[in-house]
Amino acid sequence: MSDKARQVILQAEVVVGYRTYIELITELLGGKQIVSTGMMQEIDRCRAAVEIAIEGKRVTVVSSGDPGIYGMAGLVYEIVAQYPENIRPEVTVIPGISAVNAAAAVLGAPLMHDFAVISLSDLLTPWEMIQKRVEMAGSADFVIALYNPKSLKRTTQIEEVRKILLRHRSPLTPVGIVGHASRMGQRAVISSLERFTQEHIDMFSLVIIGNSQTFVQDGRMITPRGYTL
Amino acid sequence: MSDKARQVILQAEVVVGYRTYIELITELLGGKQIVSTGMMQEIDRCRAAVEIAIEGKRVTVVSSGDPGIYGMAGLVYEIVAQYPENIRPEVTVIPGISAVNAAAAVLGAPLMHDFAVISLSDLLTPWEMIQKRVEMAGSADFVIALYNPKSLKRTTQIEEVRKILLRHRSPLTPVGIVGHASRMGQRAVISSLERFTQEHIDMFSLVIIGNSQTFVQDGRMITPRGYTL
Repeated sequence: MSDKARQVILQAEVVVGYRTYIELITELLGGKQIVSTGMMQEIDRCRAAVEIAIEGKRVTVVSSGDPGIYGMAGLVYEIVAQYPENIRPEVTVIPGISAVNAAAAVLGAPLMHDFAVISLSDLLTPWEMIQKRVEMAGSADFVIALYNPKSLKRTTQIEEVRKILLRHRSPLTPVGIVGHASRMGQRAVISSLERFTQEHIDMFSLVIIGNSQTFVQDGRMITPRGYTL
Repeated sequence: MSDKARQVILQAEVVVGYRTYIELITELLGGKQIVSTGMMQEIDRCRAAVEIAIEGKRVTVVSSGDPGIYGMAGLVYEIVAQYPENIRPEVTVIPGISAVNAAAAVLGAPLMHDFAVISLSDLLTPWEMIQKRVEMAGSADFVIALYNPKSLKRTTQIEEVRKILLRHRSPLTPVGIVGHASRMGQRAVISSLERFTQEHIDMFSLVIIGNSQTFVQDGRMITPRGYTL
């Protein structure tokens, strides 16, 4: 957590968030009104926060990672826009360390060169669009970071990604998988494009697929920037 | 700065970094040995850090943003690899808030959907490769974040990027430009793909180009995640 995030939470009158995240910051919450809800209720949660702000209270919506990367920031702005202009509350986003930043640090230095960030969740995005993005990122030799690579119900997409990328990259391309990056239960493994889908991957995993230059050394995944040493 | 970064700096015996960044953290440096150098001396700086670590001291290399995104992390690992295996020091990367995280927060919520991160610096990467990445990211409707968009000597690349992307996206596509994100002198402007290169852009700027769904509302740039509200 950044200093700024801590300050903003301490200054809030009301803190809104997913229950699990609220529990991680109880030491900052003394005397505040708390609105916590379960998973998958993000629209209700953000709407509650906006309505409390309209009543004139200083509200903080907490999330893990960076709220600006596939996070709650956009939803809050979109909900605010549904209210008349003259009562819309002011919204400020405090940046954070997203799963892609955290997972890269655990793996070594895979993001030293251009990279594409793609969510494999097709709940809100057509699968054809996701496939096209993987194809284009593969063909232009981007390092590729995958959010939401797999869930209990959604297991085939990661296999299709593997097939697409094998048309563009060596089967030996390093692939890193980090679970619960920067959290309790963190685990990391480095595999290859040929074999990585045999590793444990779930909705708490972040997958980073190297570019054509990425190599593994002493158990770390490194994409060279291109310096002559 | 994150709690973890602060802890690690406080625990170091030696702190190595670019002079400007060292000056930002003087309150953490009491009693420590400091190795600071000017810009463009990053190889010397990292080599000095590695050699001090080999002597047995606990060294921290500081950088701004996230050392894992176009940062010093890779260079440190690459230099370590040049030494015999039995004397290589252990390296840990502490993730941070990169310019792309910080600029997105300033602009609103542009990174709610898949995005590509591209550096326009052709010092270490052939321009043809950079162009291809811009083309592919444009054709697959990625939000695009540009690091090193322009410098005093390098002014034409950003115009070429504009031309490439105008073949794929509306001239009205929102484009955000943030200078000195999260630092003293921060400035931000939201323009359009048609006109953004008329704004001030320099080596301290981060440019974010929206996808086909990105819109501007109340002065903020928002890429919808796709929720039905």
